[in-house]
Amino acid sequence: MTYGLGLFLEDGIVLTTDTRTNAGVDHIATVEKLTVFQNPGERVMVLASAGNLATTQSVVTLLQQRLLQQGHAANLNEAKTMFDATRMVGETLREVMNSNANYVQSYGDPSASFLFAGQIAGGKHRLFLIYPAGNFIEASKDTPFLQIGETKYGKPILDRAMLHGISTAEAVKLTLISFDATVRSNLSVAPPFDMVIYRKDSIGPVSLRRIGENDPYFHSVRDSYSGSIRDLVKNLPLNDWDECR
Amino acid sequence: MTYGLGLFLEDGIVLTTDTRTNAGVDHIATVEKLTVFQNPGERVMVLASAGNLATTQSVVTLLQQRLLQQGHAANLNEAKTMFDATRMVGETLREVMNSNANYVQSYGDPSASFLFAGQIAGGKHRLFLIYPAGNFIEASKDTPFLQIGETKYGKPILDRAMLHGISTAEAVKLTLISFDATVRSNLSVAPPFDMVIYRKDSIGPVSLRRIGENDPYFHSVRDSYSGSIRDLVKNLPLNDWDECR
Repeated sequence: MTYGLGLFLEDGIVLTTDTRTNAGVDHIATVEKLTVFQNPGERVMVLASAGNLATTQSVVTLLQQRLLQQGHAANLNEAKTMFDATRMVGETLREVMNSNANYVQSYGDPSASFLFAGQIAGGKHRLFLIYPAGNFIEASKDTPFLQIGETKYGKPILDRAMLHGISTAEAVKLTLISFDATVRSNLSVAPPFDMVIYRKDSIGPVSLRRIGENDPYFHSVRDSYSGSIRDLVKNLPLNDWDECR
Repeated sequence: MTYGLGLFLEDGIVLTTDTRTNAGVDHIATVEKLTVFQNPGERVMVLASAGNLATTQSVVTLLQQRLLQQGHAANLNEAKTMFDATRMVGETLREVMNSNANYVQSYGDPSASFLFAGQIAGGKHRLFLIYPAGNFIEASKDTPFLQIGETKYGKPILDRAMLHGISTAEAVKLTLISFDATVRSNLSVAPPFDMVIYRKDSIGPVSLRRIGENDPYFHSVRDSYSGSIRDLVKNLPLNDWDECR
């Protein structure tokens, strides 16, 4: 399983995935699920993948190969807007599914989903979620985060604390709490995490930050959050019900 | 959807479900998913249901009818241990599935799962989770909570704060935080909640407490938790990474 999270901020975008992949508990590996497509000064795009690894790797590789194919309908370097670029990712996913899904289905789920974020010079920074069907939705001020994969454990803290207006540093903090909640509750999601922090209008270059289990900042957030939340719960009022006396 | 949660404590058991049932967004109703079987002084059992409502109602009704049928293999009044009683629930579930599943499957999922808790005089207080297949597992000191239905949103807070040794009043508090997290993240789970608080060795009588949206204690826990957790997150350290400067 994967957990992928995109936070859409006034100041930028923070996009994160874990790196765990598995086909059964005895076959666990680390893979990169975050791919950067960039031409600094002109365009920066980041793709986060969840789902069938053969499907997501095919989609990513096709998109990479097509960067060099002038005039190709799915050449991300030639997309005029982030919307058009997202459509290219969705179409490429449909193409891979069309050629593979029938063969794969009897062995397991061939489907995949993506978060796709970035900015093209002259446009705004945008964040999309691409469904297994190849259609997609966009994050907004009112829907400032999108998730793929194993999304539920990490959602409550975002529902409580995530706002479009927070800083990128605050967004990193929330991301790590959301990932920590997921990791604690589900064995199939695990550090290291890969993260891209994109600052609005910088148009790159961006680099991928890998956050290991022993990353000092992750450690400090995780430990102080765990300790504080236990204190917080302890300090909440108790009931005065007869059944508990 | 349903969320059902059982906390297994040194001092007793707290068992809770929501009351939302739906067959699509236009058909939403409130039903009781917590059933008490008791003969105070001799035995107290509480059954929490999740899944297909026709299936769970059939199981509950068969168990109720059989309380009066002396010598019936699934008469909860005649079970010698909580383990035997749990097996009766599992067998009754299998019976209902055997007679209905084939007819129902093409319309939707006929399956159901249960939490089953209680104490029979001379035995210990025990808590079980009965799977759709009719087999079951038991809570223990090391696995002090069991969940059914929409379990993921409410799990992180339990993974962080739930311990076998906490008081029933603390357990009520944790239950309400876990339910609040689920309600915020998923429209298909909603108050009122039904709760049974069982004190070890009391062997009843227990009564069902209904906790509505405006219950003053639920209100106070929810509001102070939400406020405090936002403060807590705000007070955690920020990173000093270049990308966030």
